[in-house]
Amino acid sequence: MITTIEESPLYRIANPRSIAFFGASNNFMRMGSIMLSSMEDLRYEGTIYPIHLTEKQVRGHRAYRSIADLPEVPDLAIIVLPTDVVCQTMEECGRKGVRRAIVVSGGFKEAGAEGAAMQKRLEQIADKYGIRFLGPNCLGVTNPHIRLNPTPLPAEGPPGFVGLASQSGSFVTQMFNYLHRHGMGFSTALSVGNEANIDIIDCMEYLGACPKTKVIALYVEGITRGRKFMETARAITPHKPIVALYVGGSETGRRAGSSHTGAMAGPDGIYDGMFRQSGIIRAQTLSELFDFCLALGTLPRPGGNRVIVQTHSGGPGAVAADALGRAGLTLPSLSPDTIRKLRAIIPKTASTNNPVDMTFSKNPMDDFHRIPDILLQEENADMLLVYFLTPETFIERGMKNMAVPPEKIPGEVEKLTDRNVESFFSLTQTHAKPIIGYTYRSLQERMLKGLLERGVPIYPGPERAARALAALLEYYTWRDNLP
Amino acid sequence: MITTIEESPLYRIANPRSIAFFGASNNFMRMGSIMLSSMEDLRYEGTIYPIHLTEKQVRGHRAYRSIADLPEVPDLAIIVLPTDVVCQTMEECGRKGVRRAIVVSGGFKEAGAEGAAMQKRLEQIADKYGIRFLGPNCLGVTNPHIRLNPTPLPAEGPPGFVGLASQSGSFVTQMFNYLHRHGMGFSTALSVGNEANIDIIDCMEYLGACPKTKVIALYVEGITRGRKFMETARAITPHKPIVALYVGGSETGRRAGSSHTGAMAGPDGIYDGMFRQSGIIRAQTLSELFDFCLALGTLPRPGGNRVIVQTHSGGPGAVAADALGRAGLTLPSLSPDTIRKLRAIIPKTASTNNPVDMTFSKNPMDDFHRIPDILLQEENADMLLVYFLTPETFIERGMKNMAVPPEKIPGEVEKLTDRNVESFFSLTQTHAKPIIGYTYRSLQERMLKGLLERGVPIYPGPERAARALAALLEYYTWRDNLP
Repeated sequence: MITTIEESPLYRIANPRSIAFFGASNNFMRMGSIMLSSMEDLRYEGTIYPIHLTEKQVRGHRAYRSIADLPEVPDLAIIVLPTDVVCQTMEECGRKGVRRAIVVSGGFKEAGAEGAAMQKRLEQIADKYGIRFLGPNCLGVTNPHIRLNPTPLPAEGPPGFVGLASQSGSFVTQMFNYLHRHGMGFSTALSVGNEANIDIIDCMEYLGACPKTKVIALYVEGITRGRKFMETARAITPHKPIVALYVGGSETGRRAGSSHTGAMAGPDGIYDGMFRQSGIIRAQTLSELFDFCLALGTLPRPGGNRVIVQTHSGGPGAVAADALGRAGLTLPSLSPDTIRKLRAIIPKTASTNNPVDMTFSKNPMDDFHRIPDILLQEENADMLLVYFLTPETFIERGMKNMAVPPEKIPGEVEKLTDRNVESFFSLTQTHAKPIIGYTYRSLQERMLKGLLERGVPIYPGPERAARALAALLEYYTWRDNLP
Repeated sequence: MITTIEESPLYRIANPRSIAFFGASNNFMRMGSIMLSSMEDLRYEGTIYPIHLTEKQVRGHRAYRSIADLPEVPDLAIIVLPTDVVCQTMEECGRKGVRRAIVVSGGFKEAGAEGAAMQKRLEQIADKYGIRFLGPNCLGVTNPHIRLNPTPLPAEGPPGFVGLASQSGSFVTQMFNYLHRHGMGFSTALSVGNEANIDIIDCMEYLGACPKTKVIALYVEGITRGRKFMETARAITPHKPIVALYVGGSETGRRAGSSHTGAMAGPDGIYDGMFRQSGIIRAQTLSELFDFCLALGTLPRPGGNRVIVQTHSGGPGAVAADALGRAGLTLPSLSPDTIRKLRAIIPKTASTNNPVDMTFSKNPMDDFHRIPDILLQEENADMLLVYFLTPETFIERGMKNMAVPPEKIPGEVEKLTDRNVESFFSLTQTHAKPIIGYTYRSLQERMLKGLLERGVPIYPGPERAARALAALLEYYTWRDNLP
């Protein structure tokens, strides 16, 4: 096992200071040009050397006819060329002294016998020169922390803490927007493609050592080095959580995955056992993969499985209770002391059962601080799950009716919302228990977005919150039971 | 069973021409005032008579000291008063000749023995005068088709086709925004509260006869008249689908529901059987309740369980295949004829297995018409599931790079997007097979929103799409097997 990321063959792939770029041109409709334009959108600060046979300039960068002409040996070569010139290009890179590459081009092992033979040749060339490479048939890497994104889609949102190693390139380049909307971002994401030289295990090892990565997400269609996979995961999970989505277990998933990267899928039970024995938390869907990452990357260790639900609406409270029960969590009763403290500030109609249902807010500010503060002190509970309704239209209407001048309303709503965000967020600084929210509103509303930005996980629906809490508990239970 | 909605006791509750409103005042912080203000926001066109002891005007409406003073007998009384004056108010309504009411006030059966006795008295008064009423402890009704929304939260989005009968008032008033974002709206939503006089079965019967309701959603914490429930459902499901969420089956859900409305929940298996024997489709979560409604309310009857997945990305295709397999659907192979037709317009690298993975778009327009059109003609398949990526930022960047003048780009992107929407939507007019989409982008993006507005269901994630298709199939399979 590596102890620092510098030891990993992926270090200069994910952190290159200079890149030779094969396949970008001034014709924007080429894949290489699109990828280079994503680099520009994110304003990568290293040096880019486009290699092009005829163009003098490519998208504003000085272009070179051959890699041999470069003034230095670049840290990384990115190859987005037609299949039949990839081997020759790798050879030229090797001769120049390049030792890291990403081969985006497809048409290799995934395309049949001829492609498999070509892939073999590519591997041999790389071995001859000691080149380590991602791919072929991959989308490479994105590392938003150094503004590196040579993938087709432009990056969105700030860098984050989720380290992804994926047997699908789509999930590296197509999830920026999804992660951003759900309160996350990539630390680094790696697309492994056909895994000819670097595989998903190497990526997992790299992310295990990466200080920006708080939680590792794996998208798995098939693992070839099973023993090494488990060994590596076992070395990581005692200090960093790993969540995995495996789609090869169902007949339909297996067929789809196999035609995609040529990976060998196996029976679901085998993978399930492999994950369980390595302390890897298994997700059943892509949303769940990232839901679990959000909880594991933001929440403290829970003391146990007892959850208090705070709501002002009966139905949303009941569905949350139901979801928690199904996820294996329990709803403890409040102690007399907590009930006494609550009674002083909640309406008479409120229920101090669990879910704690305020029915309405005597003072809406209390919902975001005094009430959850009391609930977090409850010694019979380990976690707090809060229902968020908070429609800004409702607050606006209230202000209108309380004769706030119309032109002042938007500003006042924002101020009030931001104060509630800070107030609720401050609870996470003073309490050591996991605090999470659920809502049926859009996560883009100011309050919810504000909380997500401060690292308070809010889920769209209680069942997603409940399953994320169960995953959190599963991870720490596994850690606690390590010898 | 009723044959027209006019026969239902709920007809003039959901379609009142005039309303006596008890409990609204010029103090906006009262529940009654908030509810009346929602009515104003939606611009209800009937007559509103606020009843208030001291105010001459309430929120701009002429107020009356007593219901006895009204110039006419209103169709409906809405009572949002302190518990201890509700019985007397009902008595006065009866004397005036009012025959329909909504009792929003709580503090009855759900609050203990004293409240239960008061509820008994309320029932007796209603019986004496032949008054039919919703509640107590409910939020009444919303019927956006007649601009009626006397519930606390303002309505959002256009009226729709989902008829909700709910044992939680929250889901009547708090889901406008959710439904709108997900491509739906209420036809009518009814909150039943303690069901003292009108219960969820009456509501189901009303919605069964309501011509604006294409699909009925039930939120159930406990059913008391089990036999009648099944009889009524069985009379409806042969011509209109019913979807139900029951939360009383888990221990935690049961306790939460019971403290909420005092409903008697029972073992999960009993409800499961009741639903199955009546042709009711069961949802496991609130999101699923509405996901199923969307499919059942927009899609035609599928011929079978064979689905084609159309994608240009391997990973999203594989997770969809996996989700479909888990939901009991199959992915047939394409026939040689379909493959031949496709080959002419898709890239060489594309896979004509199922998922059909284009890998990239030779002509992006084809993704939204020519390709799905060919796939819909495939005789071995019954449904089409399409992956939507379509980030507008990507199209914008393309245009910028193709030298479209910057000031023209937003307009051009909109035009292109709208053309693709129309083009894809037109497939639903020329093919009789269910066509649905899934995405990880926001449903608020122009293309997805456009499709949702035209009634093409797009789901956030393939597993939600897959389960919705399975629900669609379950419903029609049940219908086909009726004697």
